[in-house]
Amino acid sequence: MMKIAILGLGTVGGGVLKLLQKVNEARTDSKIDITHVLARDIKDETLDLTGIIVTDDVDEILNSDIQLIVEVLGGVDFPYAVQRKALERGIHVVTANKDMLALHLNELAQIANQHQAQIGYEASCGGGIPIIQPLQYSLNANKINKVMGILNGTTNYILTKMADEQCEYQEALAQAQALGYAEKDPTNDIEGYDAARKIAILSRLAFKVNIPLERVEVRGISQVNQQDIQLAQENGFTLKLLGKSRQVADTISISVEPVLLPTTHSLANVKLEKNAIFIVGDAVGQTMFYGPGAGSSETASAVVSDILFIEKFGFTGNLTTQESAHFTKSITDHRYYIRLEEDMSLLKERLTAMNIKYQLWQNDEITAVLTATISEPTFKALTQELTLAAYYQIEGE
Amino acid sequence: MMKIAILGLGTVGGGVLKLLQKVNEARTDSKIDITHVLARDIKDETLDLTGIIVTDDVDEILNSDIQLIVEVLGGVDFPYAVQRKALERGIHVVTANKDMLALHLNELAQIANQHQAQIGYEASCGGGIPIIQPLQYSLNANKINKVMGILNGTTNYILTKMADEQCEYQEALAQAQALGYAEKDPTNDIEGYDAARKIAILSRLAFKVNIPLERVEVRGISQVNQQDIQLAQENGFTLKLLGKSRQVADTISISVEPVLLPTTHSLANVKLEKNAIFIVGDAVGQTMFYGPGAGSSETASAVVSDILFIEKFGFTGNLTTQESAHFTKSITDHRYYIRLEEDMSLLKERLTAMNIKYQLWQNDEITAVLTATISEPTFKALTQELTLAAYYQIEGE
Repeated sequence: MMKIAILGLGTVGGGVLKLLQKVNEARTDSKIDITHVLARDIKDETLDLTGIIVTDDVDEILNSDIQLIVEVLGGVDFPYAVQRKALERGIHVVTANKDMLALHLNELAQIANQHQAQIGYEASCGGGIPIIQPLQYSLNANKINKVMGILNGTTNYILTKMADEQCEYQEALAQAQALGYAEKDPTNDIEGYDAARKIAILSRLAFKVNIPLERVEVRGISQVNQQDIQLAQENGFTLKLLGKSRQVADTISISVEPVLLPTTHSLANVKLEKNAIFIVGDAVGQTMFYGPGAGSSETASAVVSDILFIEKFGFTGNLTTQESAHFTKSITDHRYYIRLEEDMSLLKERLTAMNIKYQLWQNDEITAVLTATISEPTFKALTQELTLAAYYQIEGE
Repeated sequence: MMKIAILGLGTVGGGVLKLLQKVNEARTDSKIDITHVLARDIKDETLDLTGIIVTDDVDEILNSDIQLIVEVLGGVDFPYAVQRKALERGIHVVTANKDMLALHLNELAQIANQHQAQIGYEASCGGGIPIIQPLQYSLNANKINKVMGILNGTTNYILTKMADEQCEYQEALAQAQALGYAEKDPTNDIEGYDAARKIAILSRLAFKVNIPLERVEVRGISQVNQQDIQLAQENGFTLKLLGKSRQVADTISISVEPVLLPTTHSLANVKLEKNAIFIVGDAVGQTMFYGPGAGSSETASAVVSDILFIEKFGFTGNLTTQESAHFTKSITDHRYYIRLEEDMSLLKERLTAMNIKYQLWQNDEITAVLTATISEPTFKALTQELTLAAYYQIEGE
């Protein structure tokens, strides 16, 4: 019988409590003993807290004979301090806290290993989608070359609405807010910061190197224009906000940015608030993991799978990385979609002068070019002194 | 240092040998020791067999101090006898042999548990796609309601060609054969038997009940008509050969059959030889696992992940099931696509008489109806005494 505490009883914490109780009910053998909950006030009246100590004093929990804490508090500094303290005492930690992990996972993993404590973080990336465990245990015969994912449901919802219903950005955002997919202050999602943390955590695990969060090049979707989405669609491409990273030899490129994918690409068909993670390994080739990126019971599914794994296997070792990779803005060459504010003749002149082939895309409203495959420095040189209205890399070719 | 033998050096066996040698090369710590290979003659000259005993005597291997065998022989009776013998001696088994597992896994699991031996079978379903481990360890907080997959690359290749390039069935089959996706005698794939074994293995694990292979209702694609595919596409549906199973209370329906999916469904966009498995759990909702369903290094990726798991964790217990479920032909109601050989007036009369609403689909070449949602017995009653040219359930709504 493993003794666990749940720190935080918000959307995810409440879901974890309910799901654990359901799992316990279905069991004939040893149950999971939820001894404590850390919460100031309980808002959700459907929660059954019978036999559970509710406290707002985290030390009361850490000083008990607890074996595992589920940290679903939100925030960074307090969760970091609590997890650190728990791990130093050999208490296992299961967490969905991507904001904190993207900054501190490597350090926490080192502390955990010293004290034979396990960190489970399946729920930190892709919500309920199994991805951390498959990377650790199912794709571990592979050298992973590429990780590419729709890692944020809010932005994917907005881009889907803009593409399929021809909404403007502000209207799609308002809809997402009304449905609870986007927060009142949506900056974190919209500007790509949330996805940046997830791609950093996933890439660290996939490539087994340090990924300082500040190395992730981030561009969000707040400048995305409905007309570019339509023009791209007419030509067989879909705009998606992707977290993506690639490793070639010892060099890594990692970014979050809106890119154009062929509509036939597996990720192009991931719609609304759904998430998906595309992984390329040297043995397996292309794989994709698709599912819910958020939600109470959905995220709880991932949290509880971590709890069950630790219950079965205990301390199995945490990945620590010493090496810091070499980072570069774009490791591979791409085609680029480019549109200017002014008329396109200046761009066309440059393309011709630089001997870069291109296609012209146009409809009744706008004109853009699609370049041949060029390097990132060539793209920079090409667009110097031009005022870009929109530019997107073409991915997944 | 774990001592292992590879039984069979065909496409998959050769891939496993190469991948294990690559994994060993990348390791600084303890290697995996490939001591024996069971093979009569080595056709692939690129294989490095230095230091490995090649024998055609399986007892020589089982009598050695081997700890794990990789069974990738093909066939049923001999592999069954060998696996049984190995497990009785406490030797772990990793296998891709779906034909054998679909018949004998439950019995082998019982023997294995008695002797503390582990059976790994990640490669048996979906080739390189992680699905067995995720079901066991990532989705284990869920009650699984539904498993639905494109589990056969040959038939998916043929259906994709028929849909996208408007090939006739025979032409698409010939292309698949020319590319090595289909065998000379394609019966096993085409008639759905291969997919039936995989959906049986997956459903046993998902629902934790016995699934006798003969319970799987099987209909292949050899009767599929190009014109029906086109008419469905014009109306927003894609024809796919799906292995699918569903559990409601203690009743299960399990089948392999061609069905129509909305083109927006995640499985509808799985093209050519790719496979994907769609899982619905009560906590996580809809998830999908996508990737290569076959191939040498792709399947080896799954086989080696099992080897590494057993190397790390040893015997972790094999699922055994006692309960046999109650089976029914179709557990949920569906819409149906129906086309008759003769003109459609008789069908329309019946639909009207039975008070079933329907849409008429037609183009220059054919006419069909799409019924409202009806039960399977109603469908049977409706189509009695009619000569059906084509009928398909609508799935994924």
